[in-house]
Amino acid sequence: MKFSKTPGPRNLITDVTGLLVGNAQDTDLKSGVTVLICNQHTMTASCGVLGGAPGTRETDLLQPEKSVSRIDAIVLSGGSAYGLDACSGVTAGLHKMGRGYTIGSTSVPIVPGAILFDLLNGGHKNWNINPYSKLGRQALKTASTHFELGSMGAGAGALTATLKGGLGSASLVLDEAMTVGALAAVNSVGTVTTPGERHFWAAPFEIGDEFGGLGPDPRTELGYNFTTKKVHSENERCNTTIAVVATDASMSKAQAKHVATVAHAGIARAILPSHMPSDGDIVFCVSTHPSQASASNDSLHAIVHGTTLCLSRAIARAIYCAQPHPTDLLPTWNIQNPKKFKHP
Amino acid sequence: MKFSKTPGPRNLITDVTGLLVGNAQDTDLKSGVTVLICNQHTMTASCGVLGGAPGTRETDLLQPEKSVSRIDAIVLSGGSAYGLDACSGVTAGLHKMGRGYTIGSTSVPIVPGAILFDLLNGGHKNWNINPYSKLGRQALKTASTHFELGSMGAGAGALTATLKGGLGSASLVLDEAMTVGALAAVNSVGTVTTPGERHFWAAPFEIGDEFGGLGPDPRTELGYNFTTKKVHSENERCNTTIAVVATDASMSKAQAKHVATVAHAGIARAILPSHMPSDGDIVFCVSTHPSQASASNDSLHAIVHGTTLCLSRAIARAIYCAQPHPTDLLPTWNIQNPKKFKHP
Repeated sequence: MKFSKTPGPRNLITDVTGLLVGNAQDTDLKSGVTVLICNQHTMTASCGVLGGAPGTRETDLLQPEKSVSRIDAIVLSGGSAYGLDACSGVTAGLHKMGRGYTIGSTSVPIVPGAILFDLLNGGHKNWNINPYSKLGRQALKTASTHFELGSMGAGAGALTATLKGGLGSASLVLDEAMTVGALAAVNSVGTVTTPGERHFWAAPFEIGDEFGGLGPDPRTELGYNFTTKKVHSENERCNTTIAVVATDASMSKAQAKHVATVAHAGIARAILPSHMPSDGDIVFCVSTHPSQASASNDSLHAIVHGTTLCLSRAIARAIYCAQPHPTDLLPTWNIQNPKKFKHP
Repeated sequence: MKFSKTPGPRNLITDVTGLLVGNAQDTDLKSGVTVLICNQHTMTASCGVLGGAPGTRETDLLQPEKSVSRIDAIVLSGGSAYGLDACSGVTAGLHKMGRGYTIGSTSVPIVPGAILFDLLNGGHKNWNINPYSKLGRQALKTASTHFELGSMGAGAGALTATLKGGLGSASLVLDEAMTVGALAAVNSVGTVTTPGERHFWAAPFEIGDEFGGLGPDPRTELGYNFTTKKVHSENERCNTTIAVVATDASMSKAQAKHVATVAHAGIARAILPSHMPSDGDIVFCVSTHPSQASASNDSLHAIVHGTTLCLSRAIARAIYCAQPHPTDLLPTWNIQNPKKFKHP
């Protein structure tokens, strides 16, 4: 298995041929929506759910034995179960654009999605009309190969155990014909940095200084006596990392299921602890290739490992890029004065 | 969530109340069997399969919706599909001991198991009678709270990408009432040490010098241009990490399923790449507690994280303890002269 360590030109999931990402967020609400579409084709897709407390929509049809073979978009949203309405907004927007699975004289966009819990992050929450459908439509309108990381989209109000969370992305060019990438909204029970330090768990996999370049923590015996999120003592269920991994190589839906499931290794290496009973950790996998021909064994090995590395890097970049907000409950990683930096 | 960083007195899975482990191996065959039983009770158990190429027996009954609530033993074996016969030997041995699920005047031991592929490791392989049933019976006879690590049992003929594999174990005392542990036979596609170095991927989690004390590799950009196992160029499918995680705390079968599934994070953090399409990576989770009462939310969080840490450490210890054999295709980690140490 040969590998480069070269990110694509944007170091974003949109380096994968055809992918566009749109974000919309409400800074008062401290929540938002991220949507991923392919500019030309529908996508082959599946998903793997390993967290104990998932919130999802249209994930049954992603199972390999189900008939639906291609999807139109994937939505990542804040807002807990309310955020699932973001899929409705994206579905309506795609319909207006003439996208969707054609059946007779009508068409139905297929829009799986997953949410994270950001309701208790200090944002304004007294809405009368569920805002997520509108945020979904807005996110779709901004879909582009360029998008910002950090406190954007589904990561706008995200928190980890010790630091502000966010939206992250990364890519890797495996060879001329194959790029992989990852997109993650990080709101985990666990930490993304080592205890009392700013070293990312994902540091061994960092390319250049894409998330600060501090390198790995040299200590051992890490991971014991650690901190998990307890923003509100009565409610620790404010969690979940939701992610997409992608490639422009051809793969079958069953292969996408394998990649989505095992790409959770990228979460495991970047967040400690990961996959807690109160995380709803889910990874979607998409292929933008127009055919659904199976990947070769060699390609599949490379895609599995490449997407997994991208996901770890995307998670670290989410936290690295987060921007402070006056009502934040936790500090951002990239504060002005590192000497002031204190977290448990 | 509070945590100690204290292993149990043996730093083995048998620090979990009631557990016994037995090994049997054939040094010519370069293969063997490991069996885990509880000295008094049956066990609550489930499993999670994340690898692409599993070899298993009696794993359907471990799914939470299936009726069988307790099991008698778990078998880890070399021998690829032939090794599944080890379960037959253990089943026969348990029957002789009067163990098993009683139905009228008979009883049936419930013995799930999983195998790894060690057929092309240089061992003698021209047997006429499948040897694994006998190895299973022998392993059961040796079951004890004390057992050796390294080239023992199911790890006897194991190989990783660059170093000899083996059988490993580790434990962690979470509090007076709760110990967790892990047992792993490591035969992975991927590496357990960083490229060209002896630093274990699992080093951040090492307690004391339980696997050499070298600490983490200080480099970044690791994981690219790496080596995967290619013992025989025509056949890379010589793989799989099979493991058990355990606790003496009470848990439901559904909770055991969650723990087994997400404890794969322990594989992800100790092996790179992990969960390849040609790995059959599987983790069993057992509770030795006589009741099947659900664990509290706090306990479950601690068990998930604790077992995951133990599994990473058990994987590193497997390779650290492996012993050389004249027909080995790969070096052991712990060679006499580190200057001679060379691997890709």
